[in-house]
Amino acid sequence: MQKTITAAVLIIGDEILSGRTLDTNVQTIAKMLGERGIQVREVRMVPDVIDTIIEAVNVLRRQHDYVFTTGGIGPTHDDKTAEAIAKAFGMKLERNADAWARLVVHYAGEENINPGRAKMAEIPVGAALIDNPVSTAPGFILENVYVMAGVPKIMTAMMEGVLPRLQGGAILHSRQVAADVPESVIAGGLAEIEARYAGITVGSYPKFTPNQKPHTTLVVRGTDLKIVEQAVADVAALIRQAGFEVGMESA
Amino acid sequence: MQKTITAAVLIIGDEILSGRTLDTNVQTIAKMLGERGIQVREVRMVPDVIDTIIEAVNVLRRQHDYVFTTGGIGPTHDDKTAEAIAKAFGMKLERNADAWARLVVHYAGEENINPGRAKMAEIPVGAALIDNPVSTAPGFILENVYVMAGVPKIMTAMMEGVLPRLQGGAILHSRQVAADVPESVIAGGLAEIEARYAGITVGSYPKFTPNQKPHTTLVVRGTDLKIVEQAVADVAALIRQAGFEVGMESA
Repeated sequence: MQKTITAAVLIIGDEILSGRTLDTNVQTIAKMLGERGIQVREVRMVPDVIDTIIEAVNVLRRQHDYVFTTGGIGPTHDDKTAEAIAKAFGMKLERNADAWARLVVHYAGEENINPGRAKMAEIPVGAALIDNPVSTAPGFILENVYVMAGVPKIMTAMMEGVLPRLQGGAILHSRQVAADVPESVIAGGLAEIEARYAGITVGSYPKFTPNQKPHTTLVVRGTDLKIVEQAVADVAALIRQAGFEVGMESA
Repeated sequence: MQKTITAAVLIIGDEILSGRTLDTNVQTIAKMLGERGIQVREVRMVPDVIDTIIEAVNVLRRQHDYVFTTGGIGPTHDDKTAEAIAKAFGMKLERNADAWARLVVHYAGEENINPGRAKMAEIPVGAALIDNPVSTAPGFILENVYVMAGVPKIMTAMMEGVLPRLQGGAILHSRQVAADVPESVIAGGLAEIEARYAGITVGSYPKFTPNQKPHTTLVVRGTDLKIVEQAVADVAALIRQAGFEVGMESA
Protein backbone atom coordinates (compact mmCIF):
# COMPACT_ATOMS: atom_id res chain seq x y z
CA MET A 1 0.00 0.00 0.00
CA GLN A 2 1.26 3.43 -0.88
CA LYS A 3 2.18 5.83 1.88
CA THR A 4 -0.13 8.74 2.67
CA ILE A 5 1.61 12.02 1.92
CA THR A 6 0.20 15.09 3.66
CA ALA A 7 0.54 18.81 3.20
CA ALA A 8 -0.41 22.01 4.96
CA VAL A 9 -1.18 25.33 3.29
CA LEU A 10 -0.27 28.62 4.92
CA ILE A 11 -1.99 31.68 3.45
CA ILE A 12 -0.24 34.90 4.43
CA GLY A 13 -1.79 38.36 4.13
CA ASP A 14 -3.79 41.00 5.99
CA GLU A 15 -6.08 41.34 2.97
CA ILE A 16 -7.38 37.79 3.46
CA LEU A 17 -8.11 38.22 7.18
CA SER A 18 -9.83 41.57 6.67
CA GLY A 19 -12.16 40.05 4.09
CA ARG A 20 -10.93 42.41 1.39
CA THR A 21 -9.74 39.49 -0.73
CA LEU A 22 -11.38 36.10 -1.19
CA ASP A 23 -8.71 33.43 -1.08
CA THR A 24 -8.86 30.96 -3.94
CA ASN A 25 -5.34 29.58 -3.56
CA VAL A 26 -6.34 26.94 -1.00
CA GLN A 27 -8.71 25.34 -3.48
CA THR A 28 -6.24 25.51 -6.36
CA ILE A 29 -3.42 24.01 -4.31
CA ALA A 30 -5.64 21.30 -2.78
CA LYS A 31 -6.85 20.17 -6.20
CA MET A 32 -3.38 20.17 -7.77
CA LEU A 33 -1.85 18.27 -4.86
CA GLY A 34 -4.76 15.85 -4.74
CA GLU A 35 -4.06 14.80 -8.31
CA ARG A 36 -0.48 14.04 -7.28
CA GLY A 37 -1.57 11.95 -4.30
CA ILE A 38 -0.77 14.57 -1.68
CA GLN A 39 -3.55 15.32 0.80
CA VAL A 40 -3.98 18.78 2.30
CA ARG A 41 -4.74 18.17 5.98
CA GLU A 42 -4.62 21.66 7.43
CA VAL A 43 -4.83 25.26 6.31
CA ARG A 44 -3.88 28.33 8.29
CA MET A 45 -4.34 31.95 7.32
CA VAL A 46 -2.23 34.52 9.13
CA PRO A 47 -1.56 38.27 8.85
CA ASP A 48 1.65 39.93 7.64
CA VAL A 49 3.27 39.61 11.07
CA ILE A 50 6.71 38.02 11.17
CA ASP A 51 6.44 36.23 14.53
CA THR A 52 3.03 34.82 13.63
CA ILE A 53 4.32 33.50 10.31
CA ILE A 54 7.37 31.95 12.01
CA GLU A 55 5.26 30.18 14.59
CA ALA A 56 2.81 28.80 12.02
CA VAL A 57 5.44 27.56 9.59
CA ASN A 58 7.48 25.91 12.34
CA VAL A 59 4.46 23.96 13.58
CA LEU A 60 3.26 22.97 10.13
CA ARG A 61 6.60 21.90 8.65
CA ARG A 62 7.09 19.37 11.45
CA GLN A 63 3.59 17.91 11.16
CA HIS A 64 3.35 17.49 7.40
CA ASP A 65 5.42 16.17 4.51
CA TYR A 66 5.01 19.47 2.68
CA VAL A 67 4.07 23.05 3.50
CA PHE A 68 2.99 25.48 0.79
CA THR A 69 2.84 29.17 1.60
CA THR A 70 1.31 31.92 -0.52
CA GLY A 71 1.72 35.67 -0.26
CA GLY A 72 4.21 38.19 1.05
CA ILE A 73 7.15 37.80 -1.32
CA GLY A 74 6.75 41.02 -3.33
CA PRO A 75 8.75 44.25 -3.36
CA THR A 76 6.97 46.28 -0.66
CA HIS A 77 7.43 46.66 3.11
CA ASP A 78 4.35 44.55 3.84
CA ASP A 79 5.95 41.56 2.09
CA LYS A 80 7.49 39.84 5.09
CA THR A 81 7.38 36.17 4.20
CA ALA A 82 10.97 35.67 3.02
CA GLU A 83 12.32 37.24 6.20
CA ALA A 84 9.95 35.18 8.35
CA ILE A 85 10.81 31.88 6.64
CA ALA A 86 14.53 32.60 6.92
CA LYS A 87 14.11 33.25 10.66
CA ALA A 88 11.95 30.14 11.08
CA PHE A 89 14.88 28.08 9.78
CA GLY A 90 17.54 30.14 11.56
CA MET A 91 18.98 31.18 8.20
CA LYS A 92 19.99 34.56 6.83
CA LEU A 93 18.51 36.34 3.83
CA GLU A 94 21.04 37.20 1.14
CA ARG A 95 21.00 38.31 -2.45
CA ASN A 96 20.56 35.16 -4.50
CA ALA A 97 22.77 35.42 -7.59
CA ASP A 98 20.44 33.39 -9.80
CA ALA A 99 17.33 35.36 -8.73
CA TRP A 100 19.24 38.62 -9.24
CA ALA A 101 20.33 37.60 -12.73
CA ARG A 102 16.75 36.76 -13.68
CA LEU A 103 15.54 40.15 -12.46
CA VAL A 104 18.28 41.98 -14.36
CA VAL A 105 17.18 40.32 -17.58
CA HIS A 106 13.49 40.90 -16.86
CA TYR A 107 13.91 44.58 -16.04
CA ALA A 108 16.38 45.09 -18.91
CA GLY A 109 19.39 46.13 -16.90
CA GLU A 110 20.69 46.54 -13.38
CA GLU A 111 19.96 50.27 -13.53
CA ASN A 112 16.25 49.48 -13.52
CA ILE A 113 16.43 47.44 -10.33
CA ASN A 114 15.14 49.74 -7.63
CA PRO A 115 15.36 48.69 -3.96
CA GLY A 116 11.88 47.14 -4.10
CA ARG A 117 12.84 44.92 -7.00
CA ALA A 118 16.17 44.08 -5.36
CA LYS A 119 14.26 42.90 -2.30
CA MET A 120 12.72 40.15 -4.43
CA ALA A 121 16.20 38.65 -4.91
CA GLU A 122 16.73 38.40 -1.14
CA ILE A 123 16.30 34.67 -0.54
CA PRO A 124 17.21 32.55 2.51
CA VAL A 125 20.69 31.02 2.22
CA GLY A 126 20.50 27.48 0.87
CA ALA A 127 17.04 27.79 -0.67
CA ALA A 128 16.27 26.49 -4.15
CA LEU A 129 14.33 28.81 -6.44
CA ILE A 130 10.82 28.26 -7.76
CA ASP A 131 10.40 29.59 -11.30
CA ASN A 132 7.97 32.42 -11.93
CA PRO A 133 7.06 32.38 -15.63
CA VAL A 134 4.55 35.21 -15.14
CA SER A 135 6.54 38.05 -13.56
CA THR A 136 10.03 36.56 -12.99
CA ALA A 137 10.56 37.21 -9.25
CA PRO A 138 10.99 33.65 -7.96
CA GLY A 139 9.57 31.73 -5.02
CA PHE A 140 11.82 29.37 -3.11
CA ILE A 141 12.05 26.00 -1.36
CA LEU A 142 13.68 25.44 2.01
CA GLU A 143 13.57 21.78 3.09
CA ASN A 144 9.87 20.85 2.85
CA VAL A 145 8.54 24.42 2.72
CA TYR A 146 7.49 25.85 -0.65
CA VAL A 147 7.18 29.65 -0.63
CA MET A 148 5.06 31.08 -3.42
CA ALA A 149 3.47 34.34 -4.53
CA GLY A 150 -0.07 35.26 -3.50
CA VAL A 151 -1.35 36.47 -6.87
CA PRO A 152 -3.36 33.42 -8.03
CA LYS A 153 -2.02 33.43 -11.58
CA ILE A 154 1.60 33.48 -10.38
CA MET A 155 0.94 30.97 -7.60
CA THR A 156 -0.62 28.53 -10.08
CA ALA A 157 2.33 28.84 -12.46
CA MET A 158 4.73 28.21 -9.57
CA MET A 159 2.76 25.12 -8.48
CA GLU A 160 2.82 23.78 -12.02
CA GLY A 161 6.60 24.08 -11.93
CA VAL A 162 7.14 22.28 -8.63
CA LEU A 163 4.41 19.64 -8.93
CA PRO A 164 6.38 17.12 -11.04
CA ARG A 165 9.19 17.15 -8.46
CA LEU A 166 6.98 16.36 -5.45
CA GLN A 167 6.80 12.87 -4.07
CA GLY A 168 3.22 11.75 -4.54
CA GLY A 169 1.48 9.12 -2.47
CA ALA A 170 -1.74 7.21 -2.69
CA ILE A 171 -4.27 9.20 -4.71
CA LEU A 172 -7.53 9.89 -2.89
CA HIS A 173 -10.19 9.01 -5.42
CA SER A 174 -13.56 10.64 -5.22
CA ARG A 175 -16.90 9.66 -6.74
CA GLN A 176 -20.20 11.36 -6.16
CA VAL A 177 -23.93 11.12 -6.73
CA ALA A 178 -26.62 13.70 -6.10
CA ALA A 179 -30.34 13.67 -5.48
CA ASP A 180 -33.20 15.89 -4.36
CA VAL A 181 -33.20 14.03 -1.06
CA PRO A 182 -33.06 15.59 2.42
CA GLU A 183 -29.80 14.28 3.87
CA SER A 184 -31.42 13.27 7.15
CA VAL A 185 -33.53 10.65 5.34
CA ILE A 186 -30.46 8.68 4.29
CA ALA A 187 -28.20 9.58 7.22
CA GLY A 188 -28.34 6.17 8.89
CA GLY A 189 -27.66 4.31 5.65
CA LEU A 190 -24.71 6.56 4.82
CA ALA A 191 -23.08 5.83 8.17
CA GLU A 192 -23.56 2.10 7.56
CA ILE A 193 -21.94 2.32 4.12
CA GLU A 194 -18.95 4.21 5.53
CA ALA A 195 -18.61 1.54 8.23
CA ARG A 196 -18.95 -1.30 5.69
CA TYR A 197 -15.80 -0.49 3.74
CA ALA A 198 -12.32 0.06 5.15
CA GLY A 199 -10.51 3.24 4.21
CA ILE A 200 -13.35 5.29 2.77
CA THR A 201 -15.17 8.37 3.96
CA VAL A 202 -18.66 9.39 2.86
CA GLY A 203 -19.39 13.12 2.82
CA SER A 204 -22.89 14.55 2.64
CA TYR A 205 -23.25 18.10 1.29
CA PRO A 206 -26.69 19.72 1.27
CA LYS A 207 -27.46 22.69 -0.92
CA PHE A 208 -30.34 25.08 -0.58
CA THR A 209 -31.90 25.75 -3.93
CA PRO A 210 -33.91 28.94 -4.50
CA ASN A 211 -37.20 27.00 -4.30
CA GLN A 212 -36.08 25.45 -0.98
CA LYS A 213 -36.19 21.96 -2.48
CA PRO A 214 -33.58 19.88 -0.67
CA HIS A 215 -30.64 18.75 -2.75
CA THR A 216 -27.77 16.66 -1.42
CA THR A 217 -24.48 15.60 -2.97
CA LEU A 218 -22.87 12.47 -1.56
CA VAL A 219 -19.13 12.10 -2.01
CA VAL A 220 -17.21 8.89 -1.38
CA ARG A 221 -13.45 9.25 -1.00
CA GLY A 222 -10.78 6.59 -0.68
CA THR A 223 -7.48 5.44 -2.11
CA ASP A 224 -8.87 2.16 -3.52
CA LEU A 225 -10.91 3.16 -6.56
CA LYS A 226 -12.70 -0.20 -6.75
CA ILE A 227 -13.96 0.13 -3.18
CA VAL A 228 -14.92 3.77 -3.78
CA GLU A 229 -16.99 2.72 -6.79
CA GLN A 230 -18.65 -0.09 -4.84
CA ALA A 231 -19.51 2.26 -2.02
CA VAL A 232 -20.92 4.93 -4.32
CA ALA A 233 -23.11 2.27 -5.96
CA ASP A 234 -24.38 1.42 -2.48
CA VAL A 235 -25.13 5.10 -1.87
CA ALA A 236 -27.07 5.28 -5.13
CA ALA A 237 -29.06 2.18 -4.14
CA LEU A 238 -29.78 3.69 -0.73
CA ILE A 239 -31.18 6.84 -2.31
CA ARG A 240 -33.37 4.87 -4.70
CA GLN A 241 -34.67 2.72 -1.82
CA ALA A 242 -35.70 5.93 -0.10
CA GLY A 243 -37.76 6.76 -3.18
CA PHE A 244 -35.59 9.40 -4.84
CA GLU A 245 -34.00 9.60 -8.27
CA VAL A 246 -30.23 9.57 -8.45
CA GLY A 247 -28.35 11.99 -10.64
CA MET A 248 -24.70 11.35 -11.44
CA GLU A 249 -22.38 14.30 -11.12
CA SER A 250 -18.83 14.58 -12.26
CA ALA A 251 -16.50 14.36 -9.30
CA MET B 1 -8.74 54.33 23.23
CA GLN B 2 -11.03 51.42 22.53
CA LYS B 3 -9.78 47.92 23.15
CA THR B 4 -8.85 45.71 20.22
CA ILE B 5 -11.18 42.74 20.02
CA THR B 6 -9.89 39.74 18.09
CA ALA B 7 -11.46 36.64 16.60
CA ALA B 8 -10.40 33.39 14.99
CA VAL B 9 -12.36 31.47 12.37
CA LEU B 10 -12.33 27.68 12.25
CA ILE B 11 -13.59 26.16 9.00
CA ILE B 12 -14.47 22.48 9.41
CA GLY B 13 -14.94 20.08 6.51
CA ASP B 14 -13.16 17.54 4.30
CA GLU B 15 -14.73 19.18 1.25
CA ILE B 16 -12.74 22.38 1.83
CA LEU B 17 -9.39 20.61 2.26
CA SER B 18 -9.93 18.42 -0.80
CA GLY B 19 -10.58 21.47 -2.96
CA ARG B 20 -14.09 20.27 -3.81
CA THR B 21 -15.63 23.37 -2.24
CA LEU B 22 -14.31 26.94 -2.32
CA ASP B 23 -14.74 28.45 1.12
CA THR B 24 -16.39 31.85 1.12
CA ASN B 25 -17.34 31.91 4.80
CA VAL B 26 -14.00 33.35 5.93
CA GLN B 27 -14.53 36.44 3.82
CA THR B 28 -18.17 36.86 4.88
CA ILE B 29 -17.35 36.50 8.58
CA ALA B 30 -14.29 38.77 8.37
CA LYS B 31 -16.29 41.55 6.73
CA MET B 32 -19.23 41.29 9.13
CA LEU B 33 -16.97 41.24 12.20
CA GLY B 34 -14.85 44.06 10.83
CA GLU B 35 -17.88 46.33 10.70
CA ARG B 36 -18.49 45.54 14.37
CA GLY B 37 -14.90 46.36 15.34
CA ILE B 38 -13.78 42.75 15.74
CA GLN B 39 -10.62 41.79 13.89
CA VAL B 40 -10.09 38.29 12.52
CA ARG B 41 -6.49 37.43 13.35
CA GLU B 42 -6.28 33.79 12.43
CA VAL B 43 -8.10 31.22 10.32
CA ARG B 44 -7.72 27.48 10.44
CA MET B 45 -9.30 24.90 8.17
CA VAL B 46 -9.46 21.33 9.43
CA PRO B 47 -11.04 18.06 8.29
CA ASP B 48 -14.02 16.28 9.88
CA VAL B 49 -11.82 14.61 12.50
CA ILE B 50 -12.89 15.01 16.11
CA ASP B 51 -9.45 15.16 17.75
CA THR B 52 -8.24 17.69 15.20
CA ILE B 53 -11.27 19.92 15.77
CA ILE B 54 -10.85 19.68 19.56
CA GLU B 55 -7.19 20.66 19.38
CA ALA B 56 -7.84 23.62 17.09
CA VAL B 57 -10.77 25.02 19.05
CA ASN B 58 -8.96 24.70 22.36
CA VAL B 59 -5.98 26.66 21.07
CA LEU B 60 -8.04 29.34 19.36
CA ARG B 61 -10.55 29.99 22.15
CA ARG B 62 -7.74 30.80 24.57
CA GLN B 63 -5.95 33.14 22.17
CA HIS B 64 -8.89 35.20 20.91
CA ASP B 65 -11.92 37.01 22.26
CA TYR B 66 -14.17 35.07 19.92
CA VAL B 67 -14.01 31.91 17.84
CA PHE B 68 -16.45 31.27 15.00
CA THR B 69 -16.71 27.80 13.54
CA THR B 70 -18.53 26.77 10.37
CA GLY B 71 -19.53 23.31 9.19
CA GLY B 72 -20.28 19.92 10.62
CA ILE B 73 -23.56 20.47 12.50
CA GLY B 74 -25.94 18.70 10.12
CA PRO B 75 -27.77 15.36 10.39
CA THR B 76 -25.23 12.94 8.91
CA HIS B 77 -22.37 10.86 10.36
CA ASP B 78 -19.74 13.20 8.91
CA ASP B 79 -21.14 16.10 10.98
CA LYS B 80 -18.87 15.85 14.01
CA THR B 81 -18.57 19.43 15.19
CA ALA B 82 -21.10 19.38 18.05
CA GLU B 83 -19.48 16.29 19.55
CA ALA B 84 -16.01 17.78 19.14
CA ILE B 85 -16.95 21.11 20.71
CA ALA B 86 -18.64 19.36 23.64
CA LYS B 87 -15.49 17.30 24.22
CA ALA B 88 -13.27 20.39 23.88
CA PHE B 89 -15.16 21.92 26.81
CA GLY B 90 -15.46 18.66 28.73
CA MET B 91 -19.26 18.82 28.40
CA LYS B 92 -21.80 16.22 27.34
CA LEU B 93 -24.13 16.39 24.36
CA GLU B 94 -27.80 16.12 25.24
CA ARG B 95 -31.09 16.72 23.56
CA ASN B 96 -31.76 20.44 23.87
CA ALA B 97 -35.46 20.95 24.61
CA ASP B 98 -35.67 24.28 22.81
CA ALA B 99 -33.87 22.97 19.70
CA TRP B 100 -36.08 19.88 19.73
CA ALA B 101 -39.24 21.96 19.93
CA ARG B 102 -38.14 24.07 16.98
CA LEU B 103 -37.48 20.96 14.89
CA VAL B 104 -40.85 19.47 15.79
CA VAL B 105 -42.60 22.60 14.53
CA HIS B 106 -40.42 22.80 11.40
CA TYR B 107 -40.94 19.16 10.44
CA ALA B 108 -44.63 19.29 11.36
CA GLY B 109 -44.64 16.70 14.11
CA GLU B 110 -42.41 14.47 16.18
CA GLU B 111 -43.22 11.52 13.91
CA ASN B 112 -41.25 13.23 11.13
CA ILE B 113 -38.09 13.55 13.20
CA ASN B 114 -35.87 10.74 12.01
CA PRO B 115 -32.58 10.01 13.84
CA GLY B 116 -30.64 12.36 11.55
CA ARG B 117 -32.94 15.26 12.37
CA ALA B 118 -32.89 14.34 16.06
CA LYS B 119 -29.08 14.56 15.95
CA MET B 120 -29.40 18.27 15.17
CA ALA B 121 -31.04 18.81 18.57
CA GLU B 122 -28.03 17.25 20.35
CA ILE B 123 -26.30 20.32 21.80
CA PRO B 124 -23.59 20.57 24.47
CA VAL B 125 -25.03 21.07 27.96
CA GLY B 126 -25.12 24.73 28.89
CA ALA B 127 -24.87 26.08 25.35
CA ALA B 128 -27.09 28.92 24.12
CA LEU B 129 -28.74 28.44 20.74
CA ILE B 130 -28.06 30.44 17.59
CA ASP B 131 -31.20 30.94 15.52
CA ASN B 132 -31.37 29.45 12.04
CA PRO B 133 -34.06 31.33 10.10
CA VAL B 134 -33.24 29.36 6.92
CA SER B 135 -33.61 25.70 7.88
CA THR B 136 -34.37 25.78 11.63
CA ALA B 137 -31.64 23.46 13.04
CA PRO B 138 -29.79 25.86 15.35
CA GLY B 139 -26.14 26.63 15.94
CA PHE B 140 -24.91 27.21 19.46
CA ILE B 141 -22.64 29.27 21.69
CA LEU B 142 -20.41 27.87 24.40
CA GLU B 143 -18.45 30.57 26.23
CA ASN B 144 -16.66 32.48 23.45
CA VAL B 145 -17.14 29.84 20.75
CA TYR B 146 -19.87 30.34 18.14
CA VAL B 147 -20.75 27.17 16.27
CA MET B 148 -22.49 27.72 12.95
CA ALA B 149 -23.58 25.83 9.84
CA GLY B 150 -21.31 25.55 6.80
CA VAL B 151 -23.87 26.33 4.11
CA PRO B 152 -23.09 30.00 3.36
CA LYS B 153 -26.70 31.15 3.31
CA ILE B 154 -27.39 29.61 6.72
CA MET B 155 -24.07 30.75 8.16
CA THR B 156 -24.73 34.33 7.10
CA ALA B 157 -28.21 34.30 8.66
CA MET B 158 -26.73 32.95 11.90
CA MET B 159 -24.05 35.65 11.92
CA GLU B 160 -26.69 38.32 11.39
CA GLY B 161 -28.44 37.00 14.47
CA VAL B 162 -25.43 36.96 16.79
CA LEU B 163 -23.70 40.10 15.54
CA PRO B 164 -25.69 42.65 17.58
CA ARG B 165 -24.84 40.74 20.78
CA LEU B 166 -21.07 40.72 20.25
CA GLN B 167 -18.87 43.18 22.06
CA GLY B 168 -17.30 45.32 19.38
CA GLY B 169 -14.02 47.16 19.73
CA ALA B 170 -12.17 49.78 17.77
CA ILE B 171 -13.23 49.64 14.12
CA LEU B 172 -10.37 49.14 11.69
CA HIS B 173 -11.01 51.73 9.01
CA SER B 174 -9.71 51.16 5.54
CA ARG B 175 -9.17 53.56 2.65
CA GLN B 176 -7.61 52.76 -0.65
CA VAL B 177 -6.29 54.22 -3.88
CA ALA B 178 -5.20 52.47 -7.05
CA ALA B 179 -2.95 53.25 -9.98
CA ASP B 180 -1.28 51.64 -12.96
CA VAL B 181 2.00 51.82 -11.09
CA PRO B 182 4.44 48.95 -10.51
CA GLU B 183 4.50 48.56 -6.75
CA SER B 184 8.28 48.44 -6.60
CA VAL B 185 8.47 52.06 -7.83
CA ILE B 186 6.70 53.37 -4.74
CA ALA B 187 7.86 50.71 -2.27
CA GLY B 188 10.27 52.97 -0.38
CA GLY B 189 7.74 55.76 -0.05
CA LEU B 190 5.05 53.40 1.19
CA ALA B 191 7.31 52.14 3.97
CA GLU B 192 8.03 55.74 4.97
CA ILE B 193 4.33 56.58 5.12
CA GLU B 194 3.59 53.54 7.27
CA ALA B 195 6.43 54.57 9.61
CA ARG B 196 5.24 58.20 9.72
CA TYR B 197 1.90 57.48 11.40
CA ALA B 198 1.33 55.44 14.53
CA GLY B 199 -1.19 52.61 14.36
CA ILE B 200 -1.63 52.25 10.63
CA THR B 201 -0.63 49.59 8.15
CA VAL B 202 -0.19 50.13 4.43
CA GLY B 203 -0.90 47.16 2.20
CA SER B 204 0.17 46.96 -1.43
CA TYR B 205 -1.75 44.59 -3.71
CA PRO B 206 -0.63 44.15 -7.31
CA LYS B 207 -2.91 42.74 -9.94
CA PHE B 208 -1.95 41.33 -13.29
CA THR B 209 -4.24 42.62 -15.96
CA PRO B 210 -4.65 40.65 -19.20
CA ASN B 211 -2.44 43.12 -21.07
CA GLN B 212 0.27 42.73 -18.40
CA LYS B 213 0.03 46.41 -17.49
CA PRO B 214 0.91 46.73 -13.82
CA HIS B 215 -1.91 47.80 -11.53
CA THR B 216 -1.56 48.23 -7.77
CA THR B 217 -4.09 48.91 -5.05
CA LEU B 218 -2.80 50.56 -1.88
CA VAL B 219 -4.81 50.03 1.28
CA VAL B 220 -4.30 52.02 4.49
CA ARG B 221 -5.83 50.48 7.62
CA GLY B 222 -6.08 51.90 11.11
CA THR B 223 -8.50 52.63 13.92
CA ASP B 224 -8.15 56.44 13.71
CA LEU B 225 -10.03 57.44 10.57
CA LYS B 226 -8.43 60.91 10.45
CA ILE B 227 -4.94 59.42 10.41
CA VAL B 228 -5.99 56.81 7.85
CA GLU B 229 -7.26 59.59 5.57
CA GLN B 230 -4.08 61.62 6.01
CA ALA B 231 -1.95 58.61 5.19
CA VAL B 232 -3.96 57.69 2.11
CA ALA B 233 -3.60 61.27 0.88
CA ASP B 234 0.16 60.86 1.30
CA VAL B 235 0.02 57.63 -0.71
CA ALA B 236 -1.88 59.42 -3.48
CA ALA B 237 0.74 62.21 -3.51
CA LEU B 238 3.52 59.63 -3.64
CA ILE B 239 1.98 57.98 -6.70
CA ARG B 240 1.54 61.32 -8.47
CA GLN B 241 5.15 62.28 -7.70
CA ALA B 242 6.21 59.04 -9.40
CA GLY B 243 4.33 60.23 -12.51
CA PHE B 244 1.20 58.09 -12.34
CA GLU B 245 -2.48 58.96 -12.20
CA VAL B 246 -4.38 58.04 -9.07
CA GLY B 247 -7.75 56.35 -9.23
CA MET B 248 -9.94 56.27 -6.17
CA GLU B 249 -11.58 52.96 -5.38
CA SER B 250 -14.26 52.25 -2.88
CA ALA B 251 -12.80 50.53 0.16
